[in-house]
Amino acid sequence: MGRREGQAIYPGWGPVALSLPSPDIATLSYHGGRLAAAASQFPDAPTPWIDLSTGVNPRPYPAPSVSRSASARLPDPTETAALADAAAAAFGVRSQDRTVAVPGSEAALRILARLLPVKTVAIAGPTYGSHASAWRSAGATVRSIPCRDLASADADIVIAVNPNNPDGYRHAPEGLALMADRQAARGGWLIVDEAFGEVAPELSVAHRAGAGLIVLRSFGKFYGLAGVRLGFVLADRGVIAELRSVFGDWPVSAAAIAAGRAAYPDAAWRARTRASLDRKAARLDRLLSSAGFESVGGTSLFRLYAADDASRRFACLAERGILTRPFDIDPRWLRFGLPAGAAAWARLERALEACQ
Amino acid sequence: MGRREGQAIYPGWGPVALSLPSPDIATLSYHGGRLAAAASQFPDAPTPWIDLSTGVNPRPYPAPSVSRSASARLPDPTETAALADAAAAAFGVRSQDRTVAVPGSEAALRILARLLPVKTVAIAGPTYGSHASAWRSAGATVRSIPCRDLASADADIVIAVNPNNPDGYRHAPEGLALMADRQAARGGWLIVDEAFGEVAPELSVAHRAGAGLIVLRSFGKFYGLAGVRLGFVLADRGVIAELRSVFGDWPVSAAAIAAGRAAYPDAAWRARTRASLDRKAARLDRLLSSAGFESVGGTSLFRLYAADDASRRFACLAERGILTRPFDIDPRWLRFGLPAGAAAWARLERALEACQ
Repeated sequence: MGRREGQAIYPGWGPVALSLPSPDIATLSYHGGRLAAAASQFPDAPTPWIDLSTGVNPRPYPAPSVSRSASARLPDPTETAALADAAAAAFGVRSQDRTVAVPGSEAALRILARLLPVKTVAIAGPTYGSHASAWRSAGATVRSIPCRDLASADADIVIAVNPNNPDGYRHAPEGLALMADRQAARGGWLIVDEAFGEVAPELSVAHRAGAGLIVLRSFGKFYGLAGVRLGFVLADRGVIAELRSVFGDWPVSAAAIAAGRAAYPDAAWRARTRASLDRKAARLDRLLSSAGFESVGGTSLFRLYAADDASRRFACLAERGILTRPFDIDPRWLRFGLPAGAAAWARLERALEACQ
Repeated sequence: MGRREGQAIYPGWGPVALSLPSPDIATLSYHGGRLAAAASQFPDAPTPWIDLSTGVNPRPYPAPSVSRSASARLPDPTETAALADAAAAAFGVRSQDRTVAVPGSEAALRILARLLPVKTVAIAGPTYGSHASAWRSAGATVRSIPCRDLASADADIVIAVNPNNPDGYRHAPEGLALMADRQAARGGWLIVDEAFGEVAPELSVAHRAGAGLIVLRSFGKFYGLAGVRLGFVLADRGVIAELRSVFGDWPVSAAAIAAGRAAYPDAAWRARTRASLDRKAARLDRLLSSAGFESVGGTSLFRLYAADDASRRFACLAERGILTRPFDIDPRWLRFGLPAGAAAWARLERALEACQ
């Protein structure tokens, strides 16, 4: 299976039996976005479901729809290169040799685990479960270290998600730069997953990607187009050449190229969206605080809260057609994404009151 | 670079200097679909270019356009599974455990080379260059064998493209089944790339995929939607589990899911399209024969022709805005895809006359 491996790296933290109507909560606590599984576990919930289980911007970038002719033919390599150029410019990366477009950062982080010949991996956590799963599947020894202890990590590969998911922990870029130098000196790598990097650009080390430092970026979360499957890896020329060799000449779709080439040069939309996400996250905090949740952290794309009866509240919200994200590593936690539009906010508000 | 590696596996056949206006013909003879490179080499060519350099159906499947909401969110794993089910049913594969959707068969064939621990690879050829490139990049020793000698191949991995690209060589499915058994007995694999399998369903061994046999399928060629990036790997449960682990929970886009779920159950469209492609391929053969080309082979999605002055004709057609596919392994060869629509046929006819 491998599905629940993520939990094993937090000794003493899990697994935890949640008091839910169905034993299949593992499905909902491994990744977000599993509406079908939720609907089958809560068949009487009103529809449409409101999916707050991911950290995807509910207001997508107004990407141009891809032309029929572009979908029909193979993307020209010059178009894929222009996409990488636009993204690299937005990330502050100068050389296109250090950037490769991939069909989602999920595939990239998993394939990196097959390409880099390492024995030991240290992951600053708790964090996104795919990192541990990927390296363990590749045969590496994986340890979890607390985010605050990153500087003392001692492994061939060190992984930090910045800002971290789900708790929003912020690794200082200066510390990451030092760690990257140390990893380069030992012939290893620091991998910084900046999946939510657009909402905290001051933390980014993308422009430093190179010897000892690999940076992952995700398109779908901030731009609200997760179904398009687009991400980027920034790294030294050797790693980039390996990734290009593995993904081939047509790594991403015509739709991904069209969306990314429009979105990355659009700094004005990015600035407006950052401000708008900040306002919505603050509103969510007020709402959840009123409902008796304690704020743990997060970013403006998702917020992490705690409550002693979180598992009861998860089920109560789900019975009302609202899917949030439980964590088997801490049964007090629930993560909330941002509702899309006034009706969804109103439904969430009513449900939180009913579930208090 | 690695770009021109494919040619090295045909000892004595290449590279060959083509007498063209530009020395950069290697770019156009490695893969098709490089219109931008062609346009820069032939800047005075009339536009729009007619791209006959690939084997993509010029009349795409009328796929439903993907909804904004489906592009916005992560594809639900149940949707990806339903896509694999629909494809497996069309391929005659019973178990969903033997099928995985991937973002193009190109990425799959390249990643397989990183996952399977082998030393020697024999490729029936001449054929699609990515196979040799992928295994060589992974450190394997790659040999080319003539298609007709497949049965005597002796390697950990044996690769056959069926029907073969570019010459249309047809490997008998019975022989492939025997070879798969032999490969299973030695702990190796036969990989059958059925990228053009829809136009020769009688040749398919997809339903036999399992121990010793890996089958690759491509969506974009027959369905005319190469920009969508969708393919499938059919294999035993171990290989499928590895590929799932490497591509992760969201291997393909929402648009790929929507297109595939509509197209694969549509047997009527498939039948009509096969008949229509047959008619168009026959028309192309008549046209090229009148122009003095000798037919070498192909499938109904592409035709391979030979002429002593093929490189002159390639340049002459390109000067008229028509891109065909030259081969550095045989300078007498030109491969033609099917023109899209009456105007393109007429332009091709006029250009062939002018270039005779």
